[in-house]
Amino acid sequence: MKKSRHLHPGLSGKTSGFRKTLPEPEVLARQIMAGDRLALSRALTLVESRKPEHRQMAGRVIRHILPHTGNSLRTGITGVPGAGKSTFIDRLGTEWVRQGHRVAVLAIDPSSSLNRGSILGDKTRMEHLARLDEAFIRPIPSGDFGGGVARHTREAVLLCEAAGFDRIVVETVGTGQGETYVWHLTDILILLKIPGAGDELQGIKRGIMEMADLILINKADGELAEQAEQAARMFQTALHYFGSRPNEQAKVMTVSALQNKNIDKVIEHLEDFYGQAQATGQLEAKRRRQAEYWFDEHLDEGFRQYVKNHPALRQLAGQLRLDVLGGKKTPHEAADIFWEKFTGGKS
Amino acid sequence: MKKSRHLHPGLSGKTSGFRKTLPEPEVLARQIMAGDRLALSRALTLVESRKPEHRQMAGRVIRHILPHTGNSLRTGITGVPGAGKSTFIDRLGTEWVRQGHRVAVLAIDPSSSLNRGSILGDKTRMEHLARLDEAFIRPIPSGDFGGGVARHTREAVLLCEAAGFDRIVVETVGTGQGETYVWHLTDILILLKIPGAGDELQGIKRGIMEMADLILINKADGELAEQAEQAARMFQTALHYFGSRPNEQAKVMTVSALQNKNIDKVIEHLEDFYGQAQATGQLEAKRRRQAEYWFDEHLDEGFRQYVKNHPALRQLAGQLRLDVLGGKKTPHEAADIFWEKFTGGKS
Repeated sequence: MKKSRHLHPGLSGKTSGFRKTLPEPEVLARQIMAGDRLALSRALTLVESRKPEHRQMAGRVIRHILPHTGNSLRTGITGVPGAGKSTFIDRLGTEWVRQGHRVAVLAIDPSSSLNRGSILGDKTRMEHLARLDEAFIRPIPSGDFGGGVARHTREAVLLCEAAGFDRIVVETVGTGQGETYVWHLTDILILLKIPGAGDELQGIKRGIMEMADLILINKADGELAEQAEQAARMFQTALHYFGSRPNEQAKVMTVSALQNKNIDKVIEHLEDFYGQAQATGQLEAKRRRQAEYWFDEHLDEGFRQYVKNHPALRQLAGQLRLDVLGGKKTPHEAADIFWEKFTGGKS
Repeated sequence: MKKSRHLHPGLSGKTSGFRKTLPEPEVLARQIMAGDRLALSRALTLVESRKPEHRQMAGRVIRHILPHTGNSLRTGITGVPGAGKSTFIDRLGTEWVRQGHRVAVLAIDPSSSLNRGSILGDKTRMEHLARLDEAFIRPIPSGDFGGGVARHTREAVLLCEAAGFDRIVVETVGTGQGETYVWHLTDILILLKIPGAGDELQGIKRGIMEMADLILINKADGELAEQAEQAARMFQTALHYFGSRPNEQAKVMTVSALQNKNIDKVIEHLEDFYGQAQATGQLEAKRRRQAEYWFDEHLDEGFRQYVKNHPALRQLAGQLRLDVLGGKKTPHEAADIFWEKFTGGKS
């Protein structure tokens, strides 16, 4: 089960060398679909790059692999630092591999940049999974990219699917914008919590609880076992009061990633969900909604970029924003003025 | 305390007659600021109109009154039909008037259109308040307008403030988009709930619980009194588990609008909040954030309108959307194509 050591070529910082040895996008796409991990890593590096020529190549790769995507359960996992996400994913992934699946883990990492250090970090964090040929672990650097992360992550999911991974885990720290992206990118979202008050103090983002499909109280072992069960009951009650309709309520379970407790039950739940969502057409419907969401998001984003790139428009929008913030114009009036000038000058 | 009977001129459907008798916007603005209810009603009708000439006049009125706005506590109230919103607002408003305030109620009403029937309905719904000179009740028809409602409501709040109302209540049914608008329009959002399971089945929207600043369990009287107290305790616990940081948690109280129970405590809480938010600068900061939110929203909206109004762009966006929904293009690729063509043709 030992695998090739050159998992992340082109990530050493020498992008020029990387560029030179890179095959044509069409070739790269075929290699990915043949299960070539080196090719997958290279494509992921292209996807993350901010260089226009890399982005263009990434686009060509994606176009080729697109018809061969979608055949995976996309699971999002969020939770505050210390909730035990890595250990949990390590267990979950290892069990999935044991059941015959191929598992890719994409970890959105606000602290990582394009260097080896962070990757070694991820390998250490998921020690069992990292040793398996059927698993693939990759950080998505989010530190410098802002809104671009969602795009990278979405494309990374597609690339992993084309490479034959049928269980994909997207991990995010539940304190920033990440979990909203991940919610719109995955089929099912798991919130990992720890029993006791410590968790609440770590600033988990308002709103996550209502996005989660499955809430796991981790560390249900040793001294915390009873506290975890109690927390689970409380969450179940809380959800009853917060949930909209009975059938939309999230499920609550206790697990111990450390002691490998209830991981099989989590998998059972995930597989049931996946099977049913496929059979009823809900999975396809959800993914279509997500695709449309991202299309609209990126159209709007493009508009903001367009304004930014045109000095006169940028200046106008900036002045109007100041007027709005200063209470000199209503937001609507200011927006109207922008659009009058925009339309007057453009059409 | 009896007031003029002609509260809603121009709402009879004869818009042409309305137009003819209407003073210049600058005059109307002065009349509003002098506390003329007829002028206020007329301006609100302008704000609601879809006719370009009315919108333009509304804009001129708003520009004049804008420096005289902001001096009110803006309270949002949401809850499913049957939660007792009208009775509660009737009590709340009446008590506020008793304490020397002037109260305006703007009820976002999905079922109402520009006719007298709905208004009479509101008057009947808030029978005590409707009789007071210091109160003003007005429905905001939302049925036909979609996204425009937020604009009307925001402008209506400003007009009421300019007319000297210092306690403004925006009411919305908690089942649609309304409560999200109202959250971004008000200083404090009250969610009115009823004890027992009935409430959950009425489809209250996922997400409201996390927007609410104050959760009131209404109908804490008679047989339901004990059940209401129990529900309040459960909500308090639920919030502890859902809330982000301790100091951001919503407060939970029981009330009986019918028996006028705890309405004074609600007012005490609202006034404390208002005083503190003003003193700490949090109120101003929140309103600036809201203003910027609406500016960005309306810039984006304007962009969508711009695309809609240009046949070639509209067709391109429509075709790309179909490609995205059909899985032929990724959302990002499709958005890129749109912006390449847009930029190519425009700059």
